[in-house]
Amino acid sequence: MAVYTHISDEQVAQFLEHYDVGKLQSLKGIAEGVENSNFLLTTTKSQFILTLYEKRVNTRDLPFFISLMEHLAQKDISCPRPIAKNNGEALGKLAGRPAAMISFLNGYSVRVPSIPQCGQCGVALAQLHLAGVDFKTVRKNALSQKHWQPLYERSKSRAKEVDVELGSLLDDELPYLDRLWPENLPAGIIHADLFPDNVFFLEDQLSGIIDFYFAANDLLAYDLAICINAWCFDEDGNFEPKKSEALLEGYQSVRPLKKEEYDALPILCRGSATRFLLTRLYDWLNVPKNALVTPHDPRDYITRLKFHRQVKDPSIYGSAH
Amino acid sequence: MAVYTHISDEQVAQFLEHYDVGKLQSLKGIAEGVENSNFLLTTTKSQFILTLYEKRVNTRDLPFFISLMEHLAQKDISCPRPIAKNNGEALGKLAGRPAAMISFLNGYSVRVPSIPQCGQCGVALAQLHLAGVDFKTVRKNALSQKHWQPLYERSKSRAKEVDVELGSLLDDELPYLDRLWPENLPAGIIHADLFPDNVFFLEDQLSGIIDFYFAANDLLAYDLAICINAWCFDEDGNFEPKKSEALLEGYQSVRPLKKEEYDALPILCRGSATRFLLTRLYDWLNVPKNALVTPHDPRDYITRLKFHRQVKDPSIYGSAH
Repeated sequence: MAVYTHISDEQVAQFLEHYDVGKLQSLKGIAEGVENSNFLLTTTKSQFILTLYEKRVNTRDLPFFISLMEHLAQKDISCPRPIAKNNGEALGKLAGRPAAMISFLNGYSVRVPSIPQCGQCGVALAQLHLAGVDFKTVRKNALSQKHWQPLYERSKSRAKEVDVELGSLLDDELPYLDRLWPENLPAGIIHADLFPDNVFFLEDQLSGIIDFYFAANDLLAYDLAICINAWCFDEDGNFEPKKSEALLEGYQSVRPLKKEEYDALPILCRGSATRFLLTRLYDWLNVPKNALVTPHDPRDYITRLKFHRQVKDPSIYGSAH
Repeated sequence: MAVYTHISDEQVAQFLEHYDVGKLQSLKGIAEGVENSNFLLTTTKSQFILTLYEKRVNTRDLPFFISLMEHLAQKDISCPRPIAKNNGEALGKLAGRPAAMISFLNGYSVRVPSIPQCGQCGVALAQLHLAGVDFKTVRKNALSQKHWQPLYERSKSRAKEVDVELGSLLDDELPYLDRLWPENLPAGIIHADLFPDNVFFLEDQLSGIIDFYFAANDLLAYDLAICINAWCFDEDGNFEPKKSEALLEGYQSVRPLKKEEYDALPILCRGSATRFLLTRLYDWLNVPKNALVTPHDPRDYITRLKFHRQVKDPSIYGSAH
């Protein structure tokens, strides 16, 4: 939860003068989003999410995120649509920070997704991948495989504070991933952070996907592996094969995996578990003073990584097409 | 800002079964309220604020707060109206905590109130006081004058961490207030926390008053003194006489102060400054680990207290009726 920058009514009124969205009716800071400050803004015309981009977001990436949301919304992906100012631009400035208004999506995220919800997540992810095919702007994934070893170096000396065996696990895993990471699988725009908090449902129907601020170009099947880790384990860290089966089936009902993508699922899942393990490890060891967000426990991803390391065959995740 | 208790979609769905409010459309934790967890809950019928009462609120006080809001709303005070469950009760339980749904009020709080807005605050405060006259339930003010000395004792040894002269200031002020505090002024229901964040405006018209969780029985003019401190000083701590004049004029256009109330304004302002100074001092010195809220700087109220201590005549605050 986070509102890092407080804004006054005068600042918002000035900001809204650049838009044709009606008059301000209500403004509430919302406890959503870890990287940015988010507000639910209601006007006489509609509801919007107002986002102020905080320091952790690279300003140069913002046009990519904004135009990606525009592109996906045009392709009927149910995601927030950036609202253009009267001058046609969607990126503004508020309280000294880059800021944007996006459309408000109905729905709410589920804490424990059901098997059918995992299936719907798969469908939506594949639709997103297809909709991204003709998106021309490129953003390199700042958290792709080649960044994991340097990221680990920043936490290595303190990894034992989290788990005494974590160092040896990563010392073994990272070279393995580096040696065998698949390079020639289909690539394109991936969401890269499609956890249950970023998917909305309305009466069991998927109603929207939010938070595109990790989106980048990378392997499409890696995005699916991120979802396997995020959607298909229970709270004790046990793999739930029926959820994974539903996720893969949903995905492949829209975009069947190629054989080499399907075969790569075990290593992609290991990589995805490693990526979230490493960022959580870093955040866990480096909680800022006055943090407004409790960091995620990295140990959830140690359990996942260990699970995937003993997988011999991709069929454990679900059937090939 | 605060969401102390996280709630799942399943918990909310179960909770809503007790109400006739339509189906859940959206649920956002909001960064509002220091003591409780608040959510903006949208259903197919309307918008609501869902409050989970956290440990700092005494459960025994909840029926008072709920029935006070009901009473005031019936008297056309623009304040949140508690939503009754199908069984007629407004207090429920969610995630192991007492919980209530109240109506959503349009409007937004101003950071720096204008002179006319101070006048409207005065009008609304007097209307609230009159509407409370026939409210039968009584709640003693847990932060009334007699509680200030014991409250100070809890911070006394560390007061110098905030200001080296704070100890001697309070050692002088508290006995003075104890000796001369007016006892026989008109009393009734006071809001007791009517800061600008708790008052909403829509296009310069006051649209609502929120947060009744400090409301209690106490001197009515003391509530006005709280507003003088909260509304009529600039950011550097300078008193703004035109705002105070407007506040008093607005108040007295609805409820003229008796002579003894007007004459008591200087000591009531000293007392109100002392009360907020003491709670802020305590909170400043005792920030809980993992606090989600940055405590207010107690020094703002040292400045105010010093100002009121040199006031010789109530006319500085505005005209008598």
